[in-house]
Amino acid sequence: MAPTVYDVTTWPGASVSPYTDIGRVINDIVADIHATQTTPTTRPGAVIYIPPGHYTLQTTAVIDVSFLTIKGSGHGFMSEAVRDGSSTGAWVETLPGSSHVQIANANQTGFVVTRSGTPGTNGRLNGIVFQDFCIDGISDTKPYLPGNGKTGISVQYDSDSLRIEGMGFVYLAHALVVRNADAFNITNNFITECGSCIEMVSGSIVGKITNNYLISAWAGYSVFVENNEGVLISGNSMLWAAKIQFKNVHRACITSNKFVSNFPGMIVHETTCDENLISANQFRRIYGDGTSTAYDDLYGMVQINGTGNAVSANHFSFDVPPANITPAGASPTIVLVRGGSNNFLSSNQIVSNVPAKVVLDGSTTTTKILYSATTAQFQSYTASYSHVPTP
Amino acid sequence: MAPTVYDVTTWPGASVSPYTDIGRVINDIVADIHATQTTPTTRPGAVIYIPPGHYTLQTTAVIDVSFLTIKGSGHGFMSEAVRDGSSTGAWVETLPGSSHVQIANANQTGFVVTRSGTPGTNGRLNGIVFQDFCIDGISDTKPYLPGNGKTGISVQYDSDSLRIEGMGFVYLAHALVVRNADAFNITNNFITECGSCIEMVSGSIVGKITNNYLISAWAGYSVFVENNEGVLISGNSMLWAAKIQFKNVHRACITSNKFVSNFPGMIVHETTCDENLISANQFRRIYGDGTSTAYDDLYGMVQINGTGNAVSANHFSFDVPPANITPAGASPTIVLVRGGSNNFLSSNQIVSNVPAKVVLDGSTTTTKILYSATTAQFQSYTASYSHVPTP
Amino acid sequence: MAPTVYDVTTWPGASVSPYTDIGRVINDIVADIHATQTTPTTRPGAVIYIPPGHYTLQTTAVIDVSFLTIKGSGHGFMSEAVRDGSSTGAWVETLPGSSHVQIANANQTGFVVTRSGTPGTNGRLNGIVFQDFCIDGISDTKPYLPGNGKTGISVQYDSDSLRIEGMGFVYLAHALVVRNADAFNITNNFITECGSCIEMVSGSIVGKITNNYLISAWAGYSVFVENNEGVLISGNSMLWAAKIQFKNVHRACITSNKFVSNFPGMIVHETTCDENLISANQFRRIYGDGTSTAYDDLYGMVQINGTGNAVSANHFSFDVPPANITPAGASPTIVLVRGGSNNFLSSNQIVSNVPAKVVLDGSTTTTKILYSATTAQFQSYTASYSHVPTP
Repeated sequence: MAPTVYDVTTWPGASVSPYTDIGRVINDIVADIHATQTTPTTRPGAVIYIPPGHYTLQTTAVIDVSFLTIKGSGHGFMSEAVRDGSSTGAWVETLPGSSHVQIANANQTGFVVTRSGTPGTNGRLNGIVFQDFCIDGISDTKPYLPGNGKTGISVQYDSDSLRIEGMGFVYLAHALVVRNADAFNITNNFITECGSCIEMVSGSIVGKITNNYLISAWAGYSVFVENNEGVLISGNSMLWAAKIQFKNVHRACITSNKFVSNFPGMIVHETTCDENLISANQFRRIYGDGTSTAYDDLYGMVQINGTGNAVSANHFSFDVPPANITPAGASPTIVLVRGGSNNFLSSNQIVSNVPAKVVLDGSTTTTKILYSATTAQFQSYTASYSHVPTP
Repeated sequence: MAPTVYDVTTWPGASVSPYTDIGRVINDIVADIHATQTTPTTRPGAVIYIPPGHYTLQTTAVIDVSFLTIKGSGHGFMSEAVRDGSSTGAWVETLPGSSHVQIANANQTGFVVTRSGTPGTNGRLNGIVFQDFCIDGISDTKPYLPGNGKTGISVQYDSDSLRIEGMGFVYLAHALVVRNADAFNITNNFITECGSCIEMVSGSIVGKITNNYLISAWAGYSVFVENNEGVLISGNSMLWAAKIQFKNVHRACITSNKFVSNFPGMIVHETTCDENLISANQFRRIYGDGTSTAYDDLYGMVQINGTGNAVSANHFSFDVPPANITPAGASPTIVLVRGGSNNFLSSNQIVSNVPAKVVLDGSTTTTKILYSATTAQFQSYTASYSHVPTP
Repeated sequence: MAPTVYDVTTWPGASVSPYTDIGRVINDIVADIHATQTTPTTRPGAVIYIPPGHYTLQTTAVIDVSFLTIKGSGHGFMSEAVRDGSSTGAWVETLPGSSHVQIANANQTGFVVTRSGTPGTNGRLNGIVFQDFCIDGISDTKPYLPGNGKTGISVQYDSDSLRIEGMGFVYLAHALVVRNADAFNITNNFITECGSCIEMVSGSIVGKITNNYLISAWAGYSVFVENNEGVLISGNSMLWAAKIQFKNVHRACITSNKFVSNFPGMIVHETTCDENLISANQFRRIYGDGTSTAYDDLYGMVQINGTGNAVSANHFSFDVPPANITPAGASPTIVLVRGGSNNFLSSNQIVSNVPAKVVLDGSTTTTKILYSATTAQFQSYTASYSHVPTP
């Protein structure tokens, strides 16, 4: 094998068994990379392989080299929530598996990607890959936030072309937190029973979140993004408390996703967000799995707030027992245009077990609502709109 | 190497050459996993690697452990249908390749995933992965069903987070049959020249079928799903006799797919199916490659049957020689709303070489047809609808 | 290890160090495959593994066997354009990394896939895979075409089920050029700072381009396709000078993509192209990063030319300083229907910093423009159309 290929179970330089502390072994390996790759043009990074096994992480792994791939042989998901609600006396397996990394300590982060210095002076962290292994918080309680306080992966330094692919995350307060990423790629992961799944904080440049399962409880987010231009979120299945929350995000493309939530607010513009496209998504609102008083049913399954957004060719399905709708007796809001001008709703199908509404806030102007609400389904607190009712 | 990493060609415990019977070698390995992983908290599973090579499978491989990854180095597809219709005397290769598993016996299944006991008592099978190898039925005749009667993979026990990724399947009656799967993930596969590609039977919970090639002949399905809520089928290219058939499936999301078929019925609701979204798909109907009398051209390229479904922003292209349209002289049906209320067709483009129709059955009520058919393209057997004709 | 598994760093048959000339080592391995796999039914191909490292390619690698997988451990992208515009004295890394292949010579191709003989007589090249490594042109100047004249991968012989997955391409005139491919699969790649990203030339049959980053400068294409039926282009993020150019391409499905360009012409029908679907895409036009006089702003962000195309549920965002719009004082064109009949624009949102237009050429007939332009945004040089203005 080339010296750039490490196996945590066989590498002779490890200062501890990887089953005891895989974080320390990875740090040993990163130190070895520093020792063996010593000039700016001889630093191709390495691949660290984690074979199937149960590994404890006592020490946070710190990645400060570009081009490092950490890779297992399977995300090894098992539903710990189902397990913890079952009689498991005769279960064959009672832990997640495959390449299974267990974060040992409360409020600990499993993997931190960071570097001393500054991106401008010292360069960004490029082409880091987390692939095909499981990060497990071991035990947790709903809604997992703050829960055990554990974070799977935290990227705290500017990165380019970060890849998170085929990973499993379970029982974590925060599965993946990334600040200042350029052209990140988060695809084909299985992130579930976490407080929040994906949090792109501070700022990021473009980005792609595709083909993932994102299953979070009601205290956090499926996806949170702030200060971004042009992120693409497509082909994901978001469940339980599906929520994409945007803060100063523009020209995003949210398409071909499946949303299921027991709560209002599946897409939320926390601040002004402009010219985003929401198209070809299926939104399903149900009731009963969890309790949250964060929002009432006037909040909107989707709430947009900004200029020139488009909500087109989506399907909205609302099914909540009338007794559980809040405020009592209210007609639930399907889409709330909370602020801004020139928003465009077109060709959306609404199905609801109770009379439901598309609502325009009094501050909004020139919204277009085209075949997206019947006359009865439309409620406006402004006169500045154009409505072509669904017949 | 860790003891959880097996190579079928080098593992010393094999009772037979893997080239002679890879199924038996895999069963030997599974027995070894049982012998070495003996408690519910020490069962991380394993990875079984299949290097490139031609392997015969005489014995069905039976997987009864969670977290097993079976992985090759390439789906190794070759079109056996093209080969069998060609003079191959000077061909360089005449078999599929890469990690190539050939099912030896008629009516045999290559891989069965099952377990004794019950899911409630003994736990589900979690996180099993089939990745990047080829399952080949060796010889077959169109339409491959019943054909050689072979099945690639059959999952017969409740599973969670099953992954089928990067696989090739060819010349099989049934490529992949799965019952009772929760959060399955079928992505980036190449399933072709099979009777049926993907059959999700009995029931399943959510699910994701994305980014696949699915090429089946006229006797079976591209995708069959029964008793499911919320499956996402997106980004697939389905060819030859593209057909997604649903039986009691609701709130699915069928988006961004390419359909090509020589036959009617590319999406079919076999029983009542509600609130499904069909958006941003391109449907192409052609004629000539195969013979089926299952449906005539009044059946619909898409046939929906249920309440509150949406068909939006799709493109339908029909091109069949008039002499081959059945019944003779009929105007072919593009979309048939066969039953149910409050279905919603909006912003669909229809192109056809002959006058074609969107048709409402007499039993349907309150269908909306908005810019999805001209007046001439619309035919209703009920008065309960709203039609805004394409001008 | 099985004899079909090669590691370029450890294979004893190599005639040169792979770090000196990885192309020659791969050719040595291909020669070994020819020597060891000698009959049409004993040619499963092989996998060639490239561990992380910096490799120079002096000799073009020539692949003439089916079922070959060439695989690394990471695309290893670093922005060489950012690097070349920065003070890098204190940068930790100044080269791309992971499995990093550097093409040594101007106008050289890194990997050629071809075979002597003809596909009809000798069979196609099947199931070849390029996966998870980096091809780097080393140095280049914008717009990279002709630039250093280097090509990453060139497929010059008929192929079936070619896979390009997880690859990185940087600083190349042409990243990937493929002729006569059937059912190609180009997914999850990172192709950037190249003249053209993907060029499917001569002809191809179906095809799938999904979930990629495609970042090209103004002289070339994100994706060029000619003589194709039914290609699916979905879930891609195309930046800088996003452009999909079609020549005689029909029934394609362009959905769920994010486009950003500093120039007109993000989708172009170079010749007549029929019945294509363009749906659920976000198009963003900006200004300032590069100079091209190829098109002026009357060309259209999207230009369609043919019969029965559909442009539905997209979002168009135009933001160019008025002083930089050409011709001076012109209203920029968002969508130009350049020719053909029965094209269908429906449910598209247009946002622009200046008055902008949807334009019908005088040669066009029976175009439908439904909720895709206000009266002020619509300009027709023909009387043959139906316009339902956005209110």
